[in-house]
Amino acid sequence: MSDESSPSRITNFGAGPSALPVSVLEEAAKGLLNFQGTGIGIAEISHRSSEFTAFVRNVEALIRRQLRVPPTHAVLFTQGGGSAQFSAVVMNMLARYRLLHPDVPTGDVTMDYVVTGSWSKKAAEEAERLGGGQVRIVTDARKHSVSGKAFDNIPPHSAYAFSKDPALIYYCENETVDGVEFSHDVASSSSFPYHLLPENTLSPLVADYSSSFMCRPIPRLGDHAIIYAGAQKNVGPAGLTILIVRQDCIVDVDAAVRCGAAPVPITLSYKTLFDSKSLYNTPSVLALYMTGLVLERMETMGGMEYYEALNKKKAEAVYEVVKVGSSRGVFKPKVKEGSESWMNVVFDVIGDGAEKRFLDGAAQRGMSGLKGHRSVGGIRVSLYNAITEEQTQQLVQYCHEFIGQETTA
Amino acid sequence: MSDESSPSRITNFGAGPSALPVSVLEEAAKGLLNFQGTGIGIAEISHRSSEFTAFVRNVEALIRRQLRVPPTHAVLFTQGGGSAQFSAVVMNMLARYRLLHPDVPTGDVTMDYVVTGSWSKKAAEEAERLGGGQVRIVTDARKHSVSGKAFDNIPPHSAYAFSKDPALIYYCENETVDGVEFSHDVASSSSFPYHLLPENTLSPLVADYSSSFMCRPIPRLGDHAIIYAGAQKNVGPAGLTILIVRQDCIVDVDAAVRCGAAPVPITLSYKTLFDSKSLYNTPSVLALYMTGLVLERMETMGGMEYYEALNKKKAEAVYEVVKVGSSRGVFKPKVKEGSESWMNVVFDVIGDGAEKRFLDGAAQRGMSGLKGHRSVGGIRVSLYNAITEEQTQQLVQYCHEFIGQETTA
Ligand SMILES: Cc1ncc(COP(=O)(O)O)c(C=O)c1O
Ligand SMILES: Cc1ncc(COP(=O)(O)O)c(C=O)c1O
Repeated sequence: MSDESSPSRITNFGAGPSALPVSVLEEAAKGLLNFQGTGIGIAEISHRSSEFTAFVRNVEALIRRQLRVPPTHAVLFTQGGGSAQFSAVVMNMLARYRLLHPDVPTGDVTMDYVVTGSWSKKAAEEAERLGGGQVRIVTDARKHSVSGKAFDNIPPHSAYAFSKDPALIYYCENETVDGVEFSHDVASSSSFPYHLLPENTLSPLVADYSSSFMCRPIPRLGDHAIIYAGAQKNVGPAGLTILIVRQDCIVDVDAAVRCGAAPVPITLSYKTLFDSKSLYNTPSVLALYMTGLVLERMETMGGMEYYEALNKKKAEAVYEVVKVGSSRGVFKPKVKEGSESWMNVVFDVIGDGAEKRFLDGAAQRGMSGLKGHRSVGGIRVSLYNAITEEQTQQLVQYCHEFIGQETTA
Repeated sequence: MSDESSPSRITNFGAGPSALPVSVLEEAAKGLLNFQGTGIGIAEISHRSSEFTAFVRNVEALIRRQLRVPPTHAVLFTQGGGSAQFSAVVMNMLARYRLLHPDVPTGDVTMDYVVTGSWSKKAAEEAERLGGGQVRIVTDARKHSVSGKAFDNIPPHSAYAFSKDPALIYYCENETVDGVEFSHDVASSSSFPYHLLPENTLSPLVADYSSSFMCRPIPRLGDHAIIYAGAQKNVGPAGLTILIVRQDCIVDVDAAVRCGAAPVPITLSYKTLFDSKSLYNTPSVLALYMTGLVLERMETMGGMEYYEALNKKKAEAVYEVVKVGSSRGVFKPKVKEGSESWMNVVFDVIGDGAEKRFLDGAAQRGMSGLKGHRSVGGIRVSLYNAITEEQTQQLVQYCHEFIGQETTA
C-alpha cells in the first residue's frame, strides 16, 4: 500500500483534522473500491441502499453503546461541522423556547453563554448575530486569569450566575485553541457547575464536544439538551457532525414560527434529521463510513474506559515533561493547574528562536502539527484517540533531549 | 487492491452517489495513507496546511478553466448538499434584495420559481417555509403534460411570466427524479427562456445543477447569479457542494439585517465562504480531495467538449433502444421528446412482473441502480460522467435481449 517514493508516515500531533488509526485507513482504502463485497465503492453506493442504511444504524449503535446514551436522547448525523451548529443550536433551542413560552417578548428571552476560550466566544458571537434573544455571557474566563485577558482557566463555580429560564445554556467542554477543559470529575471545582443549573426544568444545556468527543465517558450526559461534535478530532475525518439531542429539543420548528420564532433552514432543523433518521438528504458518505470503522475499532479496544485510561496516561506524560522543562526555564505552561486539557496541551518555549528550534527538531524526528494556533502562538500537542502511547513517549523523549540541549547551550 | 473474496466491481447506474472512475479510486486509496508524499493521509492533514490549501486552489482552477467561469463569478465550496442550498440561495438573495430595495414591503418581494420536477418543487417549498417574500410559481410543468399531473416536459417559452423585479428566479437544470432537462441549445424551445428575463437588471437567476454539473458546458453561465451542485453525481463523492456565485450576490448579510432581512446562519452566508476562500471552517476534506482527482482526470480527458460528446453518445444510445422497445410494446418512455435528460433516462417496462424481470436480468449481468425513484417508479438509467461508452453499450445490448425475450415469450 505505501508509496515507495514518499517518506513513510509521520506522527501528526495536529489539532484537527488529525491522526487516524492506520488499520482504519487500510480498511477504508479497500472500501473505496468495494464496500462490504457489494462490488460498489463506498463513495459510489446509494445512501438509500440497504447496505448503507444498515451501516449508518450501526454507527449510531456504536456511539449509543460506548457513551451509554439513554433512550431519552437521539443520536443524529449531519454536515456542516461545529460551525454550522453554532447557528443550529440557537435556532432549534429558540424554537423550543417559543413553543414553551409563546408570550415572552423577544427582548426578555435570554441565552446563557459560558465563555472559556475562543470557540465558545465564537459561538456566543453567532448567537448575537442571529438575534431572537439576549446573549448573556454568564462567565468570561479571562476575568479569572492573572493577566485579565488570557483564556487560561476554568472559572470557579462561584463565577457562574445562570438566568432564571434561559432558552439555552452553552459551554465548550474542551477549548481546542486555548487548551483548557472542564474536569470530568463532577466533584471537582473545575467541573461544569451542574448543581447550579436552573431548577424545576429540563435543563437547556448545550455542549460543544468537538475536540473531546469520545475521548472518555461524558459526565452527566443525560442532563444535556444537546451535545455536538465534528468527527475530525477523535473519531473520524472532517465532513461529519455528530449530535446527541434530548427528545424534547426536537421540536416542530414550523409550529414555532407561528409562535414568533425565526424559520430554521430545513437541513439545520433537528426534526428534519430525526424524522429521516439522519438521511433527509445525501450525507457525507465517506466521512460516515470512516467514522464507523474508527468507532468499531474503539469498541474492540475496550470502549470509553480504555480510552479514558490511555488518554489520561498520555496527557500526564506530556504535562510531566512540560513541568520539568518549566523548572529548567525552557518551557512555560499556559494553562492554570486543574484546568488543563487532555486533548490539547499548550505551552511556550522560552528564549530567542527556541520555539523554532523545538519545531525543527521535532520535524527532523518525524513529528508534525505542533505549532500552536495562530491566534495564541506557542506549542500545542494534540493527543487525540489515535495518538498511541509510543508516539507520545517519542515526543516526551524528544522534549527531554530538547531541555538538555537548551540548558547546556 | 481488489478484495479476492468479493465479486469484482459491478456497473452502477444509480442516480447518486454514483460511479467514479476506478483510476481515481485507486489514487484516493493511496492518498488515504499518504497525501502527496507528506507522510500524512488526506483525511488527517490540516485544512490550513500549505499542501491542502494549494490543493483546494487547484480544484477551483480546474472548475474555472473547464467551465470557462468569467472573473465576474467566484467558485466556492461548502458542505450540506443541494438541500442546504435550497435555503441558502433564498437567504442570500433576499439579503441582496433588501440592500438594493430597503423600502419594499416584505409582502411585495417576489421569488419566482420554475417548477419542472420534484427537486424544483421541493426548493419552492423551502422558500415558502422560510418566508421573507412571496413565492410565485412562474410555471408548473405538470400543467403542460397530457395527464395534467406528470413532470414529463419542459414547458414552452410562452408558459413563463417572470415578475418585474424578483429577488430570485429559480430553476433546476436537470430533474434527477423525473428525467427532464432544459436543452443546452439556447435556440431550442425547451431551453431556459433567457430572452424573457427581466431587463435592465443583473439577472437574479439561480440554477440547481446538482445532477448535470460539468456533464457539458453550462449555457449562458455568465447570466447566472448562482449555480450550485452537490459533487456526488458527476464530479465526486457526497459531502461537497460547489457554488458559482456572481460577485454582486456576495453581500454583507449583516448589513442586510439592519435593512430588515432575516439573519443568515454564518456557514450559509456566501460572504463567509468568499472571504475565507471556502476555508472558514473545516471542509469536507476527503470529498474535496476526490473531487479534485476526478476534475484533474476530466481535464486530461479533454474537458467539457469531451464529456459533452461522450454523454450525448451515451444518452442517444439508451433513448434509441427505449424507442425500439416502445415500438415493440415492451418499454414506454416517460418524458416528452425534446425534454429528455442526458443524465437520467426514465422509462417504464410494460406488463405484469416485467419490471422485476428487467431488474433481475440486469443484476445477473452485473448492472445495478436501475430502479426508478420510489416516488415515480419505473426504470431510471443514470449516465453520469464516469459511466463509460462500453458500460452503456452493455446495457443497450441487454435491453435488446430483454425486448427479444419479452416479445417471443
Ligand atoms: C471546540 C471546537 N468547536 C468548534 C469547532 C469548529 O468546527 P468546524 O471546523 O467543524 O466548523 C472547532 C474546530 O476546530 C473546535 O475545536
Ligand atoms: C437536482 C437535485 N437537486 C438537489 C438535490 C439534493 O441534493 P442533496 O442530497 O445533496 O441535498 C438532488 C439530490 O439528488 C438533486 O438531484
